[in-house]
Amino acid sequence: MKAYKDLSKEELRALQTKLQEEYETLKESDIKLDMSRGKPAADQLDLSVGMLDVLNSKSVFKGEDKVDLRNYGAFDGIKEAKQLFAELMECPVDHVMVFGNSSLSIMYDLISRAMVHGIGGNTPWCRQEKVKFLCPVPGYDRHFAITDSFGIEMINIPMDENGPDMDLVEKYVNNDSAVKGIWNVPKYTNPAGVVYSDEVVRRFANLKPAAPDFRIYWDNAYAFHHVYVDNKVEMLNIVTECEKAGNPDMYYQVCSTSKVTFPGAGVAALITSPTNLAEVKKTVSLQTIGFDKINQMRHVMYFKNAAGVHAHMEKHAALLKPKFEAVLNCLEEELGGLEIGSWIRPLGGYFIAFDTLEGCAKRVVELCKEAGVVMTPAGSTYPYMKDPADTSIRIAPTLPTPEELKQACAVFVHCVKLASIEKYLGSVEK
Amino acid sequence: MKAYKDLSKEELRALQTKLQEEYETLKESDIKLDMSRGKPAADQLDLSVGMLDVLNSKSVFKGEDKVDLRNYGAFDGIKEAKQLFAELMECPVDHVMVFGNSSLSIMYDLISRAMVHGIGGNTPWCRQEKVKFLCPVPGYDRHFAITDSFGIEMINIPMDENGPDMDLVEKYVNNDSAVKGIWNVPKYTNPAGVVYSDEVVRRFANLKPAAPDFRIYWDNAYAFHHVYVDNKVEMLNIVTECEKAGNPDMYYQVCSTSKVTFPGAGVAALITSPTNLAEVKKTVSLQTIGFDKINQMRHVMYFKNAAGVHAHMEKHAALLKPKFEAVLNCLEEELGGLEIGSWIRPLGGYFIAFDTLEGCAKRVVELCKEAGVVMTPAGSTYPYMKDPADTSIRIAPTLPTPEELKQACAVFVHCVKLASIEKYLGSVEK
Repeated sequence: MKAYKDLSKEELRALQTKLQEEYETLKESDIKLDMSRGKPAADQLDLSVGMLDVLNSKSVFKGEDKVDLRNYGAFDGIKEAKQLFAELMECPVDHVMVFGNSSLSIMYDLISRAMVHGIGGNTPWCRQEKVKFLCPVPGYDRHFAITDSFGIEMINIPMDENGPDMDLVEKYVNNDSAVKGIWNVPKYTNPAGVVYSDEVVRRFANLKPAAPDFRIYWDNAYAFHHVYVDNKVEMLNIVTECEKAGNPDMYYQVCSTSKVTFPGAGVAALITSPTNLAEVKKTVSLQTIGFDKINQMRHVMYFKNAAGVHAHMEKHAALLKPKFEAVLNCLEEELGGLEIGSWIRPLGGYFIAFDTLEGCAKRVVELCKEAGVVMTPAGSTYPYMKDPADTSIRIAPTLPTPEELKQACAVFVHCVKLASIEKYLGSVEK
Repeated sequence: MKAYKDLSKEELRALQTKLQEEYETLKESDIKLDMSRGKPAADQLDLSVGMLDVLNSKSVFKGEDKVDLRNYGAFDGIKEAKQLFAELMECPVDHVMVFGNSSLSIMYDLISRAMVHGIGGNTPWCRQEKVKFLCPVPGYDRHFAITDSFGIEMINIPMDENGPDMDLVEKYVNNDSAVKGIWNVPKYTNPAGVVYSDEVVRRFANLKPAAPDFRIYWDNAYAFHHVYVDNKVEMLNIVTECEKAGNPDMYYQVCSTSKVTFPGAGVAALITSPTNLAEVKKTVSLQTIGFDKINQMRHVMYFKNAAGVHAHMEKHAALLKPKFEAVLNCLEEELGGLEIGSWIRPLGGYFIAFDTLEGCAKRVVELCKEAGVVMTPAGSTYPYMKDPADTSIRIAPTLPTPEELKQACAVFVHCVKLASIEKYLGSVEK
């Protein structure tokens, strides 16, 4: 297949006419598909329903720390749940605090607390002149929404297949004391599916922040969310690397079982140094008397240990692989060689990031919508919803069936072709 | 029995000698009792274990709003849970948002949000020169800890058997625009067990706040937590009264099932005007993708409706009544007529508030401790942990057995007598 950039104006026009005709037919075929939502499908949820049976009215409601699971107490999590997360995230158990159902709310509260109370005895951010966050892009819209809501200035950091541009990260973090944090989804990034390389993780751990209250926000949301069970990617541990580098307090890591068991009815954890944990606990103890220990125990009883979780994640992978393949194969077959889009083949996570030609992302999403395929709004993966080059589109392949994905992706690639030709002809005609 | 104030110095001395001897025997008898913790006892928790069986792997996971309970969605609560709380709290369903397990965290977040984002478009509190809260005393220590943590100035408002001193409340709220809120546990107050009278509720609803962002924080933690099933106290509804008074947005009401089902594994709700709710939802949507809908449905399936909850609460009452009676009878029998302490007989809630003679509360708690009975630290029920008159002691009768309570209360009244005589002799000898 010839790259579009090498086609003559006439060839492009002919192709456009043909594609436009086909597009009209597509629009009439009453398609209603959605590749916008990063939610597990019902068959994935079915994998975990057994968890609802392991704990019932006949259960013993006391765990290792002798606290009645049904009553107040153990506000930082039951011992068994801490141990499970410690084993899963490969860190000492004294680095773990188990919360409620949402790692997002752990992160929101970390920022909110820093705003009002400060971190490590430093001036609260709300009383500092300027607070900035680095945002590797494309990234997770909800991270950016949190920092935006507190008026924190966000700075885009480009990413490649190894992770964020670390030269730029070091330049900002090590020189600008207004830079207080950086958002990361280090493994199977949202949306590009990138796994941070060893070098990137080591350079993170060895940052020399200008701000004493700078922290790395390490949202390990997809730590064991592989798509290919025979190609599970390992990555360096932020806890160990920060300790080795003499920066033991420089990170907050969060994770959850939202996409292991049930979104909404899972369990989330914060992993950080005992010093940071002590500070966090001081304010969390004002916020709540404790989290849902019964649900914590339900998870522990169902999985028993990390191996139980890993075996469970292989069942998720078996369901996800054909979905990712449906999209990736379609992209490869339909767009390979055309040089009008690029993407990374993710080995895990929940998304595929697609880059159009410059200035085409919004148009592609618009064309998809008119043809009955809902995509995440272009720009969503950038701070302030602004993708400066207008290239980034997030594809969420988990919720539809593989058949639906084939159909939706066929529409998508068609729209990419159309938008790209529009761009070329637009430029040619100018 | 003669009042202590009417005893002669010699009579007091003789009594002191006798009580002191008995106290030494008490100290040697190796008592280990605790009347400090406002927690339900295990037999109360047993009442709700059936809830853990109603929802299991065979359940249908779709409710009225068609959202899969196991997945993301319905972030403001499932329809059935909203309806249950609306029925329980006697308010329209569009006034209800259902959260996670903790009403305390709803309240913390209301304050935190007001600090950072402001209420109703007004300047955030953190950028206002001074923020003050009114605190009816004695009150709930965790309320005071929240406002204290944000540097909010707290002002004591005395309470009697009808509720807070409303002359004082009106004076502050209607004239001082720095007064942004007032903490209330309006029914079966913590710790005095007072139920706000109709006049008090009406005067609350008819406040004319100087501050547009003033709100009444109405923590209805014990709304149906009666101790006497044949004497369930009714009180006016803050929602209706505020609407009647033309102040529909002036209150935030919270409640939870923490002491209905399980502390930690219950469900909490916010009840406020649709206008306030819309504002709250805007920031909550940044904090979380949603709460535990499975646990919400578990509660709905177990109770079915408000009548189900009320029937359940009668079982709690049957367990609580002998405990409250054990303490109240002991106080009556041992201290009646001595004029060295006063208390209100609560008809519900979780506590009994005891007032010593001025300057005696700390001493009583200290004497109790030495004799093996742990009481809540004196002063805990006041802002800044400072009870200016040092009279207030919180008795928590729910966790021990009635037998243990009799024994603990015997020690308690003994210590009240000793401390009171110390006070009289101290004053006499000066």
